[in-house]
Amino acid sequence: MKNLNVGILGATGAVGQKFIRLLETHPWFTISSLGASKRSAGKKYKQAVHWIEKTELPSNASDIVVTECIPSEFADVDFVFSGLDSSVAGDIEKSFAEAGIPVISNAKNYRTHEQVPLLVPEVNPDHAELITKQSFSKNGDGWIVTNPNCVSVPLSMSLKPLDDAFGIEAVVVTSMQSISGAGYPGVASLDIVANVVPYIGGEEDKVETESTKLLGRVNENSIAYRDFPIQATAVRVPTVDGHLLSVSVSLETKPESIDEVRKAFTDWKNPIAELDLPSSPETPVRLYEEDRHPQPRLHADREGGMQTAVGRLRKGKVMDIGYVTLAHNTIRGAAGGAILNGELLAAKGYFK
Amino acid sequence: MKNLNVGILGATGAVGQKFIRLLETHPWFTISSLGASKRSAGKKYKQAVHWIEKTELPSNASDIVVTECIPSEFADVDFVFSGLDSSVAGDIEKSFAEAGIPVISNAKNYRTHEQVPLLVPEVNPDHAELITKQSFSKNGDGWIVTNPNCVSVPLSMSLKPLDDAFGIEAVVVTSMQSISGAGYPGVASLDIVANVVPYIGGEEDKVETESTKLLGRVNENSIAYRDFPIQATAVRVPTVDGHLLSVSVSLETKPESIDEVRKAFTDWKNPIAELDLPSSPETPVRLYEEDRHPQPRLHADREGGMQTAVGRLRKGKVMDIGYVTLAHNTIRGAAGGAILNGELLAAKGYFK
Amino acid sequence: MKNLNVGILGATGAVGQKFIRLLETHPWFTISSLGASKRSAGKKYKQAVHWIEKTELPSNASDIVVTECIPSEFADVDFVFSGLDSSVAGDIEKSFAEAGIPVISNAKNYRTHEQVPLLVPEVNPDHAELITKQSFSKNGDGWIVTNPNCVSVPLSMSLKPLDDAFGIEAVVVTSMQSISGAGYPGVASLDIVANVVPYIGGEEDKVETESTKLLGRVNENSIAYRDFPIQATAVRVPTVDGHLLSVSVSLETKPESIDEVRKAFTDWKNPIAELDLPSSPETPVRLYEEDRHPQPRLHADREGGMQTAVGRLRKGKVMDIGYVTLAHNTIRGAAGGAILNGELLAAKGYFK
Amino acid sequence: MKNLNVGILGATGAVGQKFIRLLETHPWFTISSLGASKRSAGKKYKQAVHWIEKTELPSNASDIVVTECIPSEFADVDFVFSGLDSSVAGDIEKSFAEAGIPVISNAKNYRTHEQVPLLVPEVNPDHAELITKQSFSKNGDGWIVTNPNCVSVPLSMSLKPLDDAFGIEAVVVTSMQSISGAGYPGVASLDIVANVVPYIGGEEDKVETESTKLLGRVNENSIAYRDFPIQATAVRVPTVDGHLLSVSVSLETKPESIDEVRKAFTDWKNPIAELDLPSSPETPVRLYEEDRHPQPRLHADREGGMQTAVGRLRKGKVMDIGYVTLAHNTIRGAAGGAILNGELLAAKGYFK
Repeated sequence: MKNLNVGILGATGAVGQKFIRLLETHPWFTISSLGASKRSAGKKYKQAVHWIEKTELPSNASDIVVTECIPSEFADVDFVFSGLDSSVAGDIEKSFAEAGIPVISNAKNYRTHEQVPLLVPEVNPDHAELITKQSFSKNGDGWIVTNPNCVSVPLSMSLKPLDDAFGIEAVVVTSMQSISGAGYPGVASLDIVANVVPYIGGEEDKVETESTKLLGRVNENSIAYRDFPIQATAVRVPTVDGHLLSVSVSLETKPESIDEVRKAFTDWKNPIAELDLPSSPETPVRLYEEDRHPQPRLHADREGGMQTAVGRLRKGKVMDIGYVTLAHNTIRGAAGGAILNGELLAAKGYFK
Repeated sequence: MKNLNVGILGATGAVGQKFIRLLETHPWFTISSLGASKRSAGKKYKQAVHWIEKTELPSNASDIVVTECIPSEFADVDFVFSGLDSSVAGDIEKSFAEAGIPVISNAKNYRTHEQVPLLVPEVNPDHAELITKQSFSKNGDGWIVTNPNCVSVPLSMSLKPLDDAFGIEAVVVTSMQSISGAGYPGVASLDIVANVVPYIGGEEDKVETESTKLLGRVNENSIAYRDFPIQATAVRVPTVDGHLLSVSVSLETKPESIDEVRKAFTDWKNPIAELDLPSSPETPVRLYEEDRHPQPRLHADREGGMQTAVGRLRKGKVMDIGYVTLAHNTIRGAAGGAILNGELLAAKGYFK
Repeated sequence: MKNLNVGILGATGAVGQKFIRLLETHPWFTISSLGASKRSAGKKYKQAVHWIEKTELPSNASDIVVTECIPSEFADVDFVFSGLDSSVAGDIEKSFAEAGIPVISNAKNYRTHEQVPLLVPEVNPDHAELITKQSFSKNGDGWIVTNPNCVSVPLSMSLKPLDDAFGIEAVVVTSMQSISGAGYPGVASLDIVANVVPYIGGEEDKVETESTKLLGRVNENSIAYRDFPIQATAVRVPTVDGHLLSVSVSLETKPESIDEVRKAFTDWKNPIAELDLPSSPETPVRLYEEDRHPQPRLHADREGGMQTAVGRLRKGKVMDIGYVTLAHNTIRGAAGGAILNGELLAAKGYFK
Repeated sequence: MKNLNVGILGATGAVGQKFIRLLETHPWFTISSLGASKRSAGKKYKQAVHWIEKTELPSNASDIVVTECIPSEFADVDFVFSGLDSSVAGDIEKSFAEAGIPVISNAKNYRTHEQVPLLVPEVNPDHAELITKQSFSKNGDGWIVTNPNCVSVPLSMSLKPLDDAFGIEAVVVTSMQSISGAGYPGVASLDIVANVVPYIGGEEDKVETESTKLLGRVNENSIAYRDFPIQATAVRVPTVDGHLLSVSVSLETKPESIDEVRKAFTDWKNPIAELDLPSSPETPVRLYEEDRHPQPRLHADREGGMQTAVGRLRKGKVMDIGYVTLAHNTIRGAAGGAILNGELLAAKGYFK
């Protein structure tokens, strides 16, 4: 159906590698260009990369000659995925959008930009229409879409059914985040083996903000953020993949019973189900009933790492309810989420 | 000064072993009797125990012949420490108290008994006077004192300075608990290596209750529990020692700044400091200023494992403040806490 | 092509669950019966099992009613896979063979039986013919085939190319074994988190024996074991899946260079390649050139967990060569290996 | 008795921090100067260091103003301990020796220098006399002594009793090394959590060489290395402290029984016992009889981290015997070993 050429910016980094692995057999998107730093440019990808994925380096990427992240080197692509580090993403992504190349980015730089959608397809697919308000390029061919930080993905996805049914009033969350969230080399093993580090620089601010944009409403040229408060504590734990969140929520309309809340989760309809996107999970938000579930090592990979798991749902003594939620931080919370954004925008015809 | 003979009930278990290690060179208490199950009775301790402590089995315990947990076998002791499992602690501890032998217990069975103090010396030393209301033995020689569950120790200790300064209104807490909290063999490695399990059976109820007794007031013959609500989520993480809590608190009197809260911690006076008890830490509640502190592997052993560490203190968006707190679960939160209770009661003259 | 009904003995255990997961979409074998202990009999599988696999419980197994492990309950099967514990495998497996039901077993009980093949398809496919010498059942319909212990699988597979090219003279091996090798609940987390336990009961004997049968020659009615010595040290390390072995080998014919040894690995032909078995890996013994490879977490899952990885190949100062080797202990070293045995025997027409 | 001022080179690094912690209450040595890189010079130590030890930063070091590693800044010291990185240790240590300041170094740079003793006090105390052959400074006041790499310490210490009793013929060793051996930040957590990395750059060469110097004999102006071969495989495992070695040894004189070998360990006399050095363990090489011992997490700290543990002693099928051995890599294998060297040399009167 769709047949689009894609480039990957930051192709040798941890997120870039994940893009390459997830796109290996993608039915719509074909990798045609790989961008990285000057140091890697000119080398074949297999020589430029320190491959850290569990699977083999895909043969459709291994021999591509890496270029610098300059729009002129990406003439053949329909759009690019960006796994760039935030220290360089600002300028580079802008240069691509200005050159008329759409950018679907995992970086944080444009997440709070007024006309840039912060997009989770199951949560706020309508925010995509902000694209048409962007003015990066003259004719509007170039634009930027972002996905949220890896904690805000399961947070917003698990809040969405609650918001639809009851309205969110306030959220207190402690996120227990895996080491892959810090990239490679990332966290020193001496800091985290048999340990917990109760701080992740800059993380709590993102968690406290992004969900209020995601659950916000399109308002002419921008998004009206929601005004419920979120209080976040972000800690690092020695898991490999999957961020687990302990969430307490106050609701606007008080549910009569915990079963009513349970029903809000199980009855919730995925608004993009009918689009049948290739990376779309069958159950985007799944409620687990077994007390000991979900767990990062057992459940983060469910549905190709694209599912958000919810468990331990129960009445609370301070806030109305408590639950835990889990999503794969480098798939659903990063590269996989960006790919799903690409699929949504392809299905909606945003690529010209 | 004091010279008391003590017995240990449940001497071969994980908590019992910790009692034996901590009492190896204790200036007041001398181990004279060790009690365990029928299976161990009649053996020398070194033959009965599967020793799991890092230090050598102390020579003052290794040759003691283990007896069953029957009061008549403990004729020579001034009191007993109980590290019994809750499945048997109820009957055995009662039988000792009835026989006129004071019991300082780590088990949960009598924690909510009306006349039994749930005691953390720095938090509620005055609760000790409930002892005189007990009627286990005719002449009052036998009585029971308990210490709280290992999460309620750092929770109550970190809430105490806040309660004194502002009053507690509500608490939301997520406790990230180490594997030693489940005893031996305890948690299966397949469940916890590189994983988090979001459930610990029965734990949340204890956390939601015990601190409201600890911070309660003596009221003739019992304790008036406090009525602020606590909402707890208890998860298991792959750390060895030290439970780390993410805490959010609403206060009755609103502090003007986070510095005022900081001052509440640093100005707080340990009410038992002047007793100079052997196991009493110099700084029972220590505020760490470094963002990445405290951490289980680095700080749980501070001050012999008897310190409660507080860190990441900051203003909150939903509740007034947020912080993390940490204490060594098998020392401060179990055997060491019980020993400190013993010291307090000895200093106050409760042993006859 | 083939269409065989299979039963699984020990279906609720860790190995049994792996059988069920690996057979979920198997092209030849259809699960028709599940056997477990009396406690589970009569329940649907989904109710009887404490499912510990990362993937969902397969729907083709979840509603099967579990029976006891009695041959009469397995009337509809062409053969059974046994994941039974060795404490019961001896009698039960014998009863199935006597009843004319072939048994492909992962248990250790019959591994050293004179007429029972200890089979790794790529190493000693010809040993299968021993089946015809067995006398468990009158007409020979029932027989037993076993796969080796999970360390002997990568050891024998990595020794085979060396044996073919140079002859094995002596082997010194240290196996660093993952926690899944001990089943569930298996190893206590307090024993292994951030630790190594230098002992695994009974393991070293198996490692020192089984490879000399695997590399032995069919000799009328039995196998002539090889007489080269193996010296093994088996330790438990905190990895989840994949046993990593440090191997030193003396060779009968001395290679002229390490490149000649390298060539022995890369030129080696898989003797069953042409059978094109469904679970057969493309490269059963793969030589990794990167110094830091293979690693349990990165490479144990390669080729569906059926590959044996070899790395760090180098000249030795005491023995001729040194290398490390790795295989997935519960797939290649257990259930997956047994399934490949089943496929080999099906392809060779042993099921009547 | 002794009262010597010491300086520490590389004071802010992982080894430097360990020196400072171990010397906090040392009866003979007082820290008077701390040297680090230009970046740290001029700051108080507490401001210059990112302290990673579990205990508090010692007050006797925290306010010392750090200087660059230049001899003129160390005028007040009797000698220096060097925890310098090998990339700079060569030049700096030489400059101190030339300036007449003795250097007791943990760095590898001079370990194979002909006149520099590679010293483990219990193994080769007589090698100290090589000091008098050195010509770094004109009058011989300045000299260099080194301790071996952290694997060669337990290897040489466990081989020494065997060598005395039977003579060593050949050694095959696999060392399972903890993450603290790589310094800080050292090993990336993504590489080692729930994993084993089968390679440590440069390590095997050191292990294969250093023990043959340690067990060598003083020969006029240098050491005659022993000619038995050592074959080493060095892997990284997710333990925090303590390197565990699996060792197989061929002996010149064949023992009649494993009990005779056991006796070689238990009867062995520590040659420096009578010197009663402050850091000297009571049992430098201890034989554990329990199969599951020694373990890094349980036993690395024994005797202040200065004990070498031996266990699993048994007859071998390829080489005469097999055993495991363990020592704390950053104490016995680094800073603590260097301090013991300092004590030996002080007791023997080498400091003028």
